[in-house]
Amino acid sequence: MALPPSRALAYARAHRQDFLSELEEFARIPTVSAQPKHRADIRACAEWLAAHLSRIGLETVRIVPTAGNPLVYAAHAADDARPTLLIYGHYDVQPPDPLAEWHSPPFTPTRRGADLFGRGVCDDKGQLLTHIKALESYLAATGALPINVRCLFEGEEEIGSTHLFPFVARHPRTLAADAAVMSDTRMLGPGRPAISYAERGALYLEFSVRGAEQDLHSGNFGGAVHNPLQALCEIIAKLHDSDRRVAIPGFYDRVCSYFDDERARMARAAPSDRDILADARAHAPWGERGHTSYERITLRPALIVNGITGGYQGPGTKGIIPARATAKLSFRLVPRQDPLEVERLVRKHLAALTPPTVRSSIRTLSAAAPAVVDPRHPAMRAAAVAYRKGFGAAPAFIRSGGTIPILDALQRTLGVPTVLMGFALPDDRMHAPNEKFHIPNFFRGIDTSIWFMAELANWRSPRRAAGRITFPERQRD
Amino acid sequence: MALPPSRALAYARAHRQDFLSELEEFARIPTVSAQPKHRADIRACAEWLAAHLSRIGLETVRIVPTAGNPLVYAAHAADDARPTLLIYGHYDVQPPDPLAEWHSPPFTPTRRGADLFGRGVCDDKGQLLTHIKALESYLAATGALPINVRCLFEGEEEIGSTHLFPFVARHPRTLAADAAVMSDTRMLGPGRPAISYAERGALYLEFSVRGAEQDLHSGNFGGAVHNPLQALCEIIAKLHDSDRRVAIPGFYDRVCSYFDDERARMARAAPSDRDILADARAHAPWGERGHTSYERITLRPALIVNGITGGYQGPGTKGIIPARATAKLSFRLVPRQDPLEVERLVRKHLAALTPPTVRSSIRTLSAAAPAVVDPRHPAMRAAAVAYRKGFGAAPAFIRSGGTIPILDALQRTLGVPTVLMGFALPDDRMHAPNEKFHIPNFFRGIDTSIWFMAELANWRSPRRAAGRITFPERQRD
Repeated sequence: MALPPSRALAYARAHRQDFLSELEEFARIPTVSAQPKHRADIRACAEWLAAHLSRIGLETVRIVPTAGNPLVYAAHAADDARPTLLIYGHYDVQPPDPLAEWHSPPFTPTRRGADLFGRGVCDDKGQLLTHIKALESYLAATGALPINVRCLFEGEEEIGSTHLFPFVARHPRTLAADAAVMSDTRMLGPGRPAISYAERGALYLEFSVRGAEQDLHSGNFGGAVHNPLQALCEIIAKLHDSDRRVAIPGFYDRVCSYFDDERARMARAAPSDRDILADARAHAPWGERGHTSYERITLRPALIVNGITGGYQGPGTKGIIPARATAKLSFRLVPRQDPLEVERLVRKHLAALTPPTVRSSIRTLSAAAPAVVDPRHPAMRAAAVAYRKGFGAAPAFIRSGGTIPILDALQRTLGVPTVLMGFALPDDRMHAPNEKFHIPNFFRGIDTSIWFMAELANWRSPRRAAGRITFPERQRD
Repeated sequence: MALPPSRALAYARAHRQDFLSELEEFARIPTVSAQPKHRADIRACAEWLAAHLSRIGLETVRIVPTAGNPLVYAAHAADDARPTLLIYGHYDVQPPDPLAEWHSPPFTPTRRGADLFGRGVCDDKGQLLTHIKALESYLAATGALPINVRCLFEGEEEIGSTHLFPFVARHPRTLAADAAVMSDTRMLGPGRPAISYAERGALYLEFSVRGAEQDLHSGNFGGAVHNPLQALCEIIAKLHDSDRRVAIPGFYDRVCSYFDDERARMARAAPSDRDILADARAHAPWGERGHTSYERITLRPALIVNGITGGYQGPGTKGIIPARATAKLSFRLVPRQDPLEVERLVRKHLAALTPPTVRSSIRTLSAAAPAVVDPRHPAMRAAAVAYRKGFGAAPAFIRSGGTIPILDALQRTLGVPTVLMGFALPDDRMHAPNEKFHIPNFFRGIDTSIWFMAELANWRSPRRAAGRITFPERQRD
């Protein structure tokens, strides 16, 4: 067994304030991948990240251009007999809108109490940085890493990882690893770590309804043309049935139920309806009849109206019938739903729901398959040990409702199972105004990553353990 | 009979290009009353207008401050035996949004072909100016006016005339007149003038639905909380029944049907379904079953969704469940609907439609009663003669679907019937991007106003003709 990583941990402890300042520097770059105006910021951030990886002493560091935002790749060899870990993360962030609701500017990271506030401080810059700081701690304190490491950081996770998929498909050797780790998921609460073994897939569409060729005076024409905003509402209102299920023919056909032993485990580990409501700061539950809130956000698919825009949105009044209305609609998908098949079902159904008095069109913005990782994999066990050391508590194994587009590709294309080692708290407001990262979790995350690498170094014959995972999921009958 | 107004007409003809330049100057001031950032522009425009009225030689000119935007008042005496005309207009304009759809900047009036493009060139600055230019033509060419004149120009018509109502109620003597004229309505087509004898009322509300206290990550919570945008759509979808009637209990209870002789007259004068569809540049009709398009936009009330905003509206994707969603909802009302009574019905029904999984609230932004003017009034006949002289064609008497909030108050509070002498064309895009005014209609409008004043001067015993109008409208059974 390798020596405990005491020197790396000591280095990390001694440099916590430096690490925090570096996270602030990282989070100051407004890498909003959805908005073309931030293209130069994206580029600058990739350069910042690559320079940072070089500075901590990684052997190979590359900025990899793509047709979209650049990837940052790095590799460092330890010993061929040791396992290889692929560290994935993303340096792009969600749009900060609505801006007026931020208590401090989204791209001016601000400490208040034990939290750091800013867009991306949690999702995913802070969590990504835990692993980089673990690598730095090993290299600075011992001159070497306990395992072989490959880093893959992308700038398009929030917009569907479009250009990462072909890179993964084309470079299986560059990315070959025994396991991958990514930190982009949530714990159950402070001091209650969790490892997610499943992520939902996603399909994101833009649905537009058009009426007259231009906005109309609502006095002169109100009552005599079908208002596209009204028609959009009428269509969206038909997308859920009275059981709050998605009312699209065929949508549930491939939905899978639990693993055999999962329901019992879930009853122990999963957050309660009340926990989930409190995390959401919502006053009432809602959702598919016959399921708990946890099941609704993990095991069951969902349709979400992410945004609607149409007509006048300024202060006061404007008397118009808008020429068009647009909704951002997204679906969260569960194992064995196929995003492309769901897309066909949705397109067909939305076309059927569009009355002849208006016209509609659909654009697909992104699609990602759901993914499940075997919780019994040795890398999962190593992560459980690492959490116990880093947080003083054993992690719960849970499903997560979010989507990490590349997860499925890492597993299916490269045969690499991924440990979802989340350090976010349920109230960190990922994707919302006033996103934050709990600073103690940043430091404990670094320690956990250091322990994880040490644990992986103990793993014998990793190549036998790795490989394609097939899953005992049953079709729901 | 007074002399034909040949000298005034000659002056107007000689100064057409000056008049057009003045309209451009007027329309360059961005008087968007709905948007507080334009308050200084509103003030500047009131000053421009008052200076202009003084310059053309009106005796009394005042800027009247209100709790909102200032009124501009002017008066000029001719002869006590002659009738008094109250000229009403508004110098505020609709918001220019969506800005991207303008072919030239909204507040840079731009001539293309026979049209002048810009926000407010038609609604209502251009139409208002026709009467000022008629007054100028008389004063410059003859040194006097053929009738007594009072001018009342407001800066809040597009936001409900809130501060004009108390002014009218408090100053019946200042505003005493035998008839009023306002040009803020449409003709049936080029060379096809029309006098509107009815306007719909309006009730404008803002309806908000709230869910969680902040936006939520749509992966982490999608499926377990009621999305306020979805709930808003579900509520709005219930506001029309399958006959496309407004599905609010009691909404139609006071709606009146035609005057006795109106249906036959309407069959001759009213635009066809096809005309209205072509004017709207829409591909399909829609509306309350059992009515023509013209009836739907004039005699029948309507509910219009003027705007919806909620969630992410930028480019690409953002995975959120928004914390709230807001709709601008307005109603166009017909005789005998009472806006305040309708407001109570709507508030009650929206509250009843709000499920316990979300919360909703309603703000009333403006309310205006419907109004009807007797088409047999002498001032209406004078206007018909004036149109024949100015446009070479007799006007059709029609109802209009729009709303002029002050119309009802002028009639009910002051006992002054109003001639709605519109010079706009159906394709002038009032309220929409690329609003325009047909330049020949501007010039013919000035001539028509000159003729109208000359005709009014012939009117004997005006005070007997004026007074409160009661209307032979039947309750629909």
